Amino acid sequence: MARVLPDQLHAFCVEAMRKAGMRERDTRTTADVLVTTDTWGITTHGTKSLRQYLTRVRAGGLSPLAVPEVVREGPSWAVVDGHDAIAMVSSCAGMELAVRKAAAAGVAYVGVKNSCHFGAAGYYAMIAARHDMIGLAMSNADPNMVVPGGKGKIVGNNPFAYAVPAGAERPLMLDIALSAVAAGKIHAATTLGKRTIPENWLVDADGLPTSDPDMYPLRACLVPMAGHKGYGLALLVEVLAAVLSGAGVTREVKSWMLDDPSKPTFHGAAFLAVDVGALMPIGEFKARMDRMIREVRGAPKAKGSERIYLPGEMEWERRDEALRCGMELPPDVIASLVGLAEDWGLDARWVQ
Amino acid sequence: MARVLPDQLHAFCVEAMRKAGMRERDTRTTADVLVTTDTWGITTHGTKSLRQYLTRVRAGGLSPLAVPEVVREGPSWAVVDGHDAIAMVSSCAGMELAVRKAAAAGVAYVGVKNSCHFGAAGYYAMIAARHDMIGLAMSNADPNMVVPGGKGKIVGNNPFAYAVPAGAERPLMLDIALSAVAAGKIHAATTLGKRTIPENWLVDADGLPTSDPDMYPLRACLVPMAGHKGYGLALLVEVLAAVLSGAGVTREVKSWMLDDPSKPTFHGAAFLAVDVGALMPIGEFKARMDRMIREVRGAPKAKGSERIYLPGEMEWERRDEALRCGMELPPDVIASLVGLAEDWGLDARWVQ
Repeated sequence: MARVLPDQLHAFCVEAMRKAGMRERDTRTTADVLVTTDTWGITTHGTKSLRQYLTRVRAGGLSPLAVPEVVREGPSWAVVDGHDAIAMVSSCAGMELAVRKAAAAGVAYVGVKNSCHFGAAGYYAMIAARHDMIGLAMSNADPNMVVPGGKGKIVGNNPFAYAVPAGAERPLMLDIALSAVAAGKIHAATTLGKRTIPENWLVDADGLPTSDPDMYPLRACLVPMAGHKGYGLALLVEVLAAVLSGAGVTREVKSWMLDDPSKPTFHGAAFLAVDVGALMPIGEFKARMDRMIREVRGAPKAKGSERIYLPGEMEWERRDEALRCGMELPPDVIASLVGLAEDWGLDARWVQ
Repeated sequence: MARVLPDQLHAFCVEAMRKAGMRERDTRTTADVLVTTDTWGITTHGTKSLRQYLTRVRAGGLSPLAVPEVVREGPSWAVVDGHDAIAMVSSCAGMELAVRKAAAAGVAYVGVKNSCHFGAAGYYAMIAARHDMIGLAMSNADPNMVVPGGKGKIVGNNPFAYAVPAGAERPLMLDIALSAVAAGKIHAATTLGKRTIPENWLVDADGLPTSDPDMYPLRACLVPMAGHKGYGLALLVEVLAAVLSGAGVTREVKSWMLDDPSKPTFHGAAFLAVDVGALMPIGEFKARMDRMIREVRGAPKAKGSERIYLPGEMEWERRDEALRCGMELPPDVIASLVGLAEDWGLDARWVQ
């Protein structure tokens, strides 16, 4: 398999988006989000998705020239209408606005409506961390998860991320979905030919636990992480990202992959920023972060374990490696990039 | 078992705190928190704890007359020094301040240092909800939980709660600890004579999963809910409640039950409020909440399930019942109240 350089991949994505009629600045913003996500090793949420986003652009469900607009605002908050821009554009705009508001007020919330699938939430949280702020980013999703006592798809496994700046240490960053496992893990089990998965990953059509990965996605659905806890947290994300922003809520949100690409998906997103330096001298905060990080990393290891990772640490190491010597993209990502090239008349020989 | 009326229990707690030298207002605030928690059925975090809090008051680790003080503040944030007041007093002050700040700015964060065990986080979140605001409340704790790859107690199973106002429906409220299960569930298994518990509740001294409930707490420790996800969320709470507020972090926090009662515990807490009405007409928000709540409640039920509960719904129903016809307190709570009466020369015959 060829190793792909991040810059090469970035240029390819920019070119595809140019052909789809997006503004130069927006193509770069979107490519930054998707390629960075790949360098973190989160290839389920990186450039693999661009083909489908641009299919939605071509069909009219996403708007290539839309400019996200602030529709209401106050000292420490704003609501942005994404106008069905590709969600990387409206989400970066949302967190950048939260950062500006927090710089003035200390803490800020920005809700975005008329968004779409925004990829890896962690990228937006990291925008805040690069400004020495604590960042939180979250989005709702079309329902794909059961809730305790129910059956079928009731709420989304809403993505949630945070990032916190540190000093000599690298930022903490956690980027999770609120299901017990991501759909990708179940597809991976199927691809590897596994006949069984743990009983707490899926429920069947009766809402009862199943260990058969082949039931997914047609006859089974995801379960919330930690049962009622993940269910409750998914509803909190639904409130902050959608009920409060004016976006679609639960069933009003459409699948960016499966539903009509000529229609909007009505996703909502939320971005919070806390300007650490307003509350505490930034050097003191960073020293306190470094101390906590080192204490956790230095704790005794479990039998058979060589290392304790801090949230984000695996991503930073994968990115170092990707920037140094390129990355090996998995076959599903390559297939999607080849399809993207076909769709928009680009040369994909470099990736094959 | 006698049924205890909430008012009776409240008066008893107030009287004990009076004898311990607390101000009249603070005794009522604290009794409100603890008795309300009992009426929700969360008797592990209600009046059962008061005996130990007042033991710490008598020994000097908690200060009966301390007045929480705002030490730094901005348009949408503040840091409060609890001065080792009983944590119900500093936590209510913290959330009330967050509500006032949010009323002016839209969104607010208040961090509290020199706090202690604050009981049920949901009570504080509900202060915001009663003001038609979204409330988040959280605290760190002395380490009692392992992290992936480690062994022993590394971080606290930090409590986290939120509350969101609704219209005709009652508020959403989630109050959780970030471990897979609360310590109370393991004690309950032991008390019931169970020989095994699920393998994902505890790890042994080597950091490996164990299904033996008797290992806890001396030779086993709690695991984070959903593995790396709960671990990451526990660190987020540690950052917001402690690193940012100036409180003790991880090992700097002492056990309110087991450590020297003459010394402070250095807990930190954080309270966030979002003034919904600033962002969206409050009636519109509440109608949107009601719609989401009814959609989730009305979803198809799993085989064998009669009902889907919204977060908080069990608590509201238990409270209705408690206010109507009193509540049956479990033996461990009664024993603690009897002990409290002995400690402070009160009559406990009514509870026995």
